[in-house]
Amino acid sequence: MAKLRIGKLVVIGVGLIGGSFALALKRAKAVKHVVGVGRTRKNLNIALKHGVIDEASQDAARAMRDADLVLIGTPVGQMPAVMATIAPYLSPKTIVTDAGSTKQDVIACARKHLGAHFANFVPAHPMAGTEMSGAAAAFPELYRGRKLILVPQRETSARAIRLVRAAWVACGAEVVLLKPREHDEILAAVSHLPHIVAYALMGMLARRSNVRHMLEFSAGGLRDTVRIAGSSPEMWRDICLANREALLKFMDAYDSELNRARVALRAGDGAALKAIFTHARNARERWLVAPERKPKRQ
Amino acid sequence: MAKLRIGKLVVIGVGLIGGSFALALKRAKAVKHVVGVGRTRKNLNIALKHGVIDEASQDAARAMRDADLVLIGTPVGQMPAVMATIAPYLSPKTIVTDAGSTKQDVIACARKHLGAHFANFVPAHPMAGTEMSGAAAAFPELYRGRKLILVPQRETSARAIRLVRAAWVACGAEVVLLKPREHDEILAAVSHLPHIVAYALMGMLARRSNVRHMLEFSAGGLRDTVRIAGSSPEMWRDICLANREALLKFMDAYDSELNRARVALRAGDGAALKAIFTHARNARERWLVAPERKPKRQ
Repeated sequence: MAKLRIGKLVVIGVGLIGGSFALALKRAKAVKHVVGVGRTRKNLNIALKHGVIDEASQDAARAMRDADLVLIGTPVGQMPAVMATIAPYLSPKTIVTDAGSTKQDVIACARKHLGAHFANFVPAHPMAGTEMSGAAAAFPELYRGRKLILVPQRETSARAIRLVRAAWVACGAEVVLLKPREHDEILAAVSHLPHIVAYALMGMLARRSNVRHMLEFSAGGLRDTVRIAGSSPEMWRDICLANREALLKFMDAYDSELNRARVALRAGDGAALKAIFTHARNARERWLVAPERKPKRQ
Repeated sequence: MAKLRIGKLVVIGVGLIGGSFALALKRAKAVKHVVGVGRTRKNLNIALKHGVIDEASQDAARAMRDADLVLIGTPVGQMPAVMATIAPYLSPKTIVTDAGSTKQDVIACARKHLGAHFANFVPAHPMAGTEMSGAAAAFPELYRGRKLILVPQRETSARAIRLVRAAWVACGAEVVLLKPREHDEILAAVSHLPHIVAYALMGMLARRSNVRHMLEFSAGGLRDTVRIAGSSPEMWRDICLANREALLKFMDAYDSELNRARVALRAGDGAALKAIFTHARNARERWLVAPERKPKRQ
């Protein structure tokens, strides 16, 4: 494969995701010039200062001119407005992609707003993130060794897929393909629900009048369990709304599992409790402990 | 304060907690000889091999002879049997303490089984742990900078409190006092419930037929949220049963918070969802972000 060389990259929404994409491509020397587009001048200035972008713009028309690749890195709730704004200024050579956490709604939105340009839009989603937001949180290694899900549609041009795939490979990601519905269902289970769980646990504690005193006695367990409750509320509101059906389904399944524990606890049924905990622990071990590190256990 | 020098320390249950206590005291040169007592010869051999203990014993009578300090480091469910076993062999000089995760039940158990020796029993609980179990998981830094809760009773002798306090200080812990009920209530909220939450999330995923495929797409968020689902099922069964009332209360409160999110999500109420997430995120920031690191936020 020829070395990837993107002349002009535009990142709309220069946060952790979009900023890290820019930094990773810069480090790989796969991009010449990065333009950042954002709502607040303050964040764009941080991005400029940290070398995440080379130029800041609040003018979409000017930013789109001669762009080779546009990454929409905003929360999914902003995508309709972003796509409607940029659509008139897209040239046929410009490839557009996104990093939205849901795909069915983003694809529907692109279909509606990008019109003929839809063939040049490659829906994508990197399996990476931290609980931090904003340009200052971006770092070039974010995607190294992480999965990047591409969700191309029937109409998506081969050239567009090639470019977006090459860009993510240059970031160090492993590219895999999923269908939109499959993507949203899986993400509801392994990402969206865990965020709800973390927000709810932290939120419940926060409603107690003695919360400060209680938290003095917490250890690493609570801290890790609620780490992602530090994530952007705006972004997660959008994701939850965009993936409502799948998320509600998994919330119900989670509720059933909690209820198993509650019923066993109420009944003082130690054997049932131990079985519930063991089942979960074994699944975690099968997932996280590599086969070669598992002596005599299956 | 004179330098602490424990002649003979007996650790009953040489796991992460008891083993780390022994290693920390050894490193501080605060103990001369450590005897490990346990159910399985295999774990005791590991403890010997790793230098956690100097002598292994499966004979409680012999182990108790001339002991200065006995730490009961077993899951709380084993404490009645352990206390009943050792009680006849305790000499007046021997101080007994524990590291059990619940205190009301442990105190009741000690009152019942230790008889006249109850005045030499100092209920305690270190706010530290990892998801690992067994002697091989022990390390001397586990308690450094962590809180150690002492729960002395009216009868507890000042000499006993002094020794146990000094031992934990030598391990690097910060010693604080709580009443038994307060301890159990706080721990239900900041430790026991988070374990239930982590087990339930992992357990729910494990019940899906496509769990392996789904987990391929998880990122650090899920991994951290379920880290403590790797904890010992036996230990957590005992803790949950021992602290059933308080835990059920906090499970209900957690359920209400989850339900707030569910109601907002079902209604497509973005403002309510964002408020729920923001409330949780702000509480986490107030807790984890030191005031000096918070620019212009309160």
